[in-house]
Amino acid sequence: MSRPKTGRSVKYEGRFLRMVDVDSWEFVERSNCDGAVVIISLTNEGNVLLIEQFRPPVGKNIIEFPAGLVGDSGSKEEFEVAALRELEEETGYTADKVTYLTIGPTAPGLSTELIAFVRAEGLTKISAGGGVESESIVIHEVPLAEVDKWLKQKQDAGIMVDLKVYAGLYYLNK
Amino acid sequence: MSRPKTGRSVKYEGRFLRMVDVDSWEFVERSNCDGAVVIISLTNEGNVLLIEQFRPPVGKNIIEFPAGLVGDSGSKEEFEVAALRELEEETGYTADKVTYLTIGPTAPGLSTELIAFVRAEGLTKISAGGGVESESIVIHEVPLAEVDKWLKQKQDAGIMVDLKVYAGLYYLNK
Repeated sequence: MSRPKTGRSVKYEGRFLRMVDVDSWEFVERSNCDGAVVIISLTNEGNVLLIEQFRPPVGKNIIEFPAGLVGDSGSKEEFEVAALRELEEETGYTADKVTYLTIGPTAPGLSTELIAFVRAEGLTKISAGGGVESESIVIHEVPLAEVDKWLKQKQDAGIMVDLKVYAGLYYLNK
Repeated sequence: MSRPKTGRSVKYEGRFLRMVDVDSWEFVERSNCDGAVVIISLTNEGNVLLIEQFRPPVGKNIIEFPAGLVGDSGSKEEFEVAALRELEEETGYTADKVTYLTIGPTAPGLSTELIAFVRAEGLTKISAGGGVESESIVIHEVPLAEVDKWLKQKQDAGIMVDLKVYAGLYYLNK
């Protein structure tokens, strides 16, 4: 059974998101940027560099890899520049080298969001981190061998783990 | 840790999604279900069981683990029942055993979506799979040792890989 071809229509235009319908499939897209980048890294001590912040949609503190929105062309090079900016803003670290890993959707049934993963290597702490003014980010540095146990302890304490963390750990363990 | 959800307003009520604003943070939530479950499994031949389907929000075919929405209580048991139903609908396999792995957000900056991961073991093919009437799902069985190369080939052919695939592979490699 084929659904009627109604084409694309914007159902609601918000400040940051818009709701769209294409051929009777509803989804959201960001109206203020082209994508996002997640930064996977180990410190020189072999610790996984993670952050924790409150996320209003789920109403909880979430463990994530450092990440940020990307504003312009969405090219691989632009993802790498955005990655360095976000890594420093959120964690206070800069990196000698940023390598593009992959790009993919996070929730392709409900949004257009595509996120690139990059690997940052050669980390040096140059500032305090913690995010820009509107953010309140806690930095965690967790030994790779202990990260499973540590994530479980966080979950037991009512903190959630973004599923992209496990995807990033897959890359760190390759 | 969790702050109260004050100042919540529904900005747009769609058929399947609604757009919500809480304290000036816009996000979407599904209005027709409580969550979703992703089924991570190897066949008895050691192949990773993946699916491919067209996803209108991103306008491309996407490689994913079998998955489906969960309707009722959102309890661990309910996730396991939904997992068996979706596994058979999409792939034609049933499983002897379903084990709950974790639950987490997919995109906690823009949606409330929480997805549970379960591991299915002891697989038996009992029907053709391919999804319900409105779905058109291709089943892929890929040797675990070759899955990285296979995913890269799919991406080179213009097909995207849901980032949750890498999260599932992390669990399969544990």
